[in-house]
Amino acid sequence: MARVNTMQCITVQVLLTGDELMSGVTTDSNSALIAEKLAQVGLTLHRKVTVGDNIRVLEAEMAALASNSDIIIVNGGLGPTIDDLTAEAVGKLIDKPLVEHLAAIQHLEQWCRARNYPLNAANNKQAFLPEGAIVINNPVGSAVGFFVEWNDCIIICTPGVPSELHVMLDAEIIPLLKQRFPQANSPSITRLQMFGMGESGLQQTILDTFPHWPAEVEVSFRAGAPTLELKLTTFDESHLPQKEEWKNKLMAVVGDCVVGEGPTNLQREVVKLLTQHKKTFTTVESCTGGLIASMLTEVPGASVVFEAGFVTYSNNMKQKLVNVSADTLGQYGAVSDAVVREMVLGALAKSGADFGVAVSGIAGPDGGTALKPVGTVWIAWGDKQNVRTQCLVVRRERKSFQLTVAAVALDLIRRQLLGILAEPIYFSTYH
Amino acid sequence: MARVNTMQCITVQVLLTGDELMSGVTTDSNSALIAEKLAQVGLTLHRKVTVGDNIRVLEAEMAALASNSDIIIVNGGLGPTIDDLTAEAVGKLIDKPLVEHLAAIQHLEQWCRARNYPLNAANNKQAFLPEGAIVINNPVGSAVGFFVEWNDCIIICTPGVPSELHVMLDAEIIPLLKQRFPQANSPSITRLQMFGMGESGLQQTILDTFPHWPAEVEVSFRAGAPTLELKLTTFDESHLPQKEEWKNKLMAVVGDCVVGEGPTNLQREVVKLLTQHKKTFTTVESCTGGLIASMLTEVPGASVVFEAGFVTYSNNMKQKLVNVSADTLGQYGAVSDAVVREMVLGALAKSGADFGVAVSGIAGPDGGTALKPVGTVWIAWGDKQNVRTQCLVVRRERKSFQLTVAAVALDLIRRQLLGILAEPIYFSTYH
Repeated sequence: MARVNTMQCITVQVLLTGDELMSGVTTDSNSALIAEKLAQVGLTLHRKVTVGDNIRVLEAEMAALASNSDIIIVNGGLGPTIDDLTAEAVGKLIDKPLVEHLAAIQHLEQWCRARNYPLNAANNKQAFLPEGAIVINNPVGSAVGFFVEWNDCIIICTPGVPSELHVMLDAEIIPLLKQRFPQANSPSITRLQMFGMGESGLQQTILDTFPHWPAEVEVSFRAGAPTLELKLTTFDESHLPQKEEWKNKLMAVVGDCVVGEGPTNLQREVVKLLTQHKKTFTTVESCTGGLIASMLTEVPGASVVFEAGFVTYSNNMKQKLVNVSADTLGQYGAVSDAVVREMVLGALAKSGADFGVAVSGIAGPDGGTALKPVGTVWIAWGDKQNVRTQCLVVRRERKSFQLTVAAVALDLIRRQLLGILAEPIYFSTYH
Repeated sequence: MARVNTMQCITVQVLLTGDELMSGVTTDSNSALIAEKLAQVGLTLHRKVTVGDNIRVLEAEMAALASNSDIIIVNGGLGPTIDDLTAEAVGKLIDKPLVEHLAAIQHLEQWCRARNYPLNAANNKQAFLPEGAIVINNPVGSAVGFFVEWNDCIIICTPGVPSELHVMLDAEIIPLLKQRFPQANSPSITRLQMFGMGESGLQQTILDTFPHWPAEVEVSFRAGAPTLELKLTTFDESHLPQKEEWKNKLMAVVGDCVVGEGPTNLQREVVKLLTQHKKTFTTVESCTGGLIASMLTEVPGASVVFEAGFVTYSNNMKQKLVNVSADTLGQYGAVSDAVVREMVLGALAKSGADFGVAVSGIAGPDGGTALKPVGTVWIAWGDKQNVRTQCLVVRRERKSFQLTVAAVALDLIRRQLLGILAEPIYFSTYH
């Protein structure tokens, strides 16, 4: 699938700094974010260099990069500690002293005041930037970013904290680059958040179903946890109708796995659907230990649809809090169709919610048996009139098991609220 | 704080190749693995360069690296497809043709036979390596690795698949480097997981309290969420007693914030302490929506100490599930000292647990008032005889607010179980 990119003439390089990136303690995800954001304005990364916190190494690297780049994005080294050296290295390169910047000091004062922190020497250091640098605001952290222009190269310095980088790219850096490089041909990207199909399965399905998929509509994937993002990209405005056409063809085949378009996820969609339907929801969790409730309540406005959740980790508490009968537990065991059915009915009765989900399983690493190995989980979902149940075997490490089961629970409610009748693919893969 | 590194004379650089690393589709974790393994033989990474699958760019990069490295580890580009270019680029650099290597072809034949795959042209390509190269076995994949020595530089080429790289590093590459560089001196690292102090505050405290901190004991930080890792590193065995001595001095000052040593976290320590004390625990959560329970039940063996948790998101459910009185809610509001006190007592009574924690707050973005702004949270913790409460104002974005509050709740129980009397620093910073 070839693509058309008019911007190959603009060289963008990334310089990642930090001993933690060199020692292997930290894995860099920032450069992937930068690449993704650059792609929005038609710019592609040419090369990435990573070095530790050493002023001489940094200076040499910056000089080398500046000699053959149009844009350098420096990431890291803007913090308050002595091993944060980016401003110093840029100052050396462009031969400017570090001076206190008003915008930076005002930001730091406000930031410290809001947190009742003293504006100590360490924090104050973050206001010293190369003379002539332009401050890039950081709405979520103490260290501002900045950029300088030097020898036909724009050098943009960004913080290493991913959440701060994210906000600053969206709010200032990408708009700045779009303005500076208006000839760039922004690709148009449609992002589908999917749940229930793996990357290779989805790719194979597309290959098998659409042997004549057009080269103008680039398909790519980004594996998330627990969702998978499928991206359809066109690089020319004239191809937009084609993208729409092939998206619809794709939706006809895998639409039940598409949670939503754009930046969304399972919990957002479930809260949205419940709100639209004016329905309330409850959870009763054993092996997921509160994760389903926690994911739902991440969503602003969740309180409208979610009043109560139960974490019934022990058999005793399954009886006491949601009225599972001792007989059922004794006869079938905690990880069983009958128990999750009673759990969800008990939670619906106690909370008065319209819909509910119950899970009971063996997260491991211990607790498995020959009949119910680690990874076995029973899920019940529905309303008082209609409870459905399903057994899955999710053979994953404990934390990943919990996340997968919580996501499946949310997806089953999503499917019920949307009236999707097709059985999810994971019913046959997890067994 | 200077450091003494006997190995600074050996320069190791990593060259990562692959379009997927440039586009942001794939996040590199291989270089972290390489760094970790190198550290075992006292070698530290000097620099990493990442480039796409372009033969001219690769050749130029290899030539530049070879001019100033003792060891180059190339990762990626050994596979069967046309964009796997590593062998070709190395051949160009050292001016040797690619020839079929017997060890490689035998491996490929065996690999294909075991899987009933044809040894097609694409697979066969993987046996063509620079003349004179020495094959590195790949017990888990089709592509072998190889190394060449050229101009006092050893160039080691490894596959991009993490599991293959892992096995090859352990089995052949690290032993090879240990044999070639026997003078290397492995660093000794002590990792302290801390909660309740920020990076800058901790560094300032160290600077203020220990102006004569020895250069032989390197101090570094890694900000995590919600904990902070403090590392003490020595590079010579003779400095180990010093590291221990200064660690103890540090513990005397900030020991109450040290959650544990090595790879641990708040939830693990809480589960460990509860298990040691043979005590059980319950949670009743409003604004954290199940996150505290979810964090606890991430820990294998949590079921021994945690039987039940309550997510009481609405006022109605606070009354119904944990017996908060309607009068108290009416008089003080859900986010109040009196309500969290009744919440924790109700949860202790309903669950029969020995210890409990309750939180009620305003996660935002909406719901704040002048008297109780977004970020306000009341926490109650303790046992039936002794419930303590505290109000904090955590001005962070919703998800970060929830994580911080959950971590504070776990930390308060940790402090109680350890009998720490000192008031946590965050009582004064979050208000």
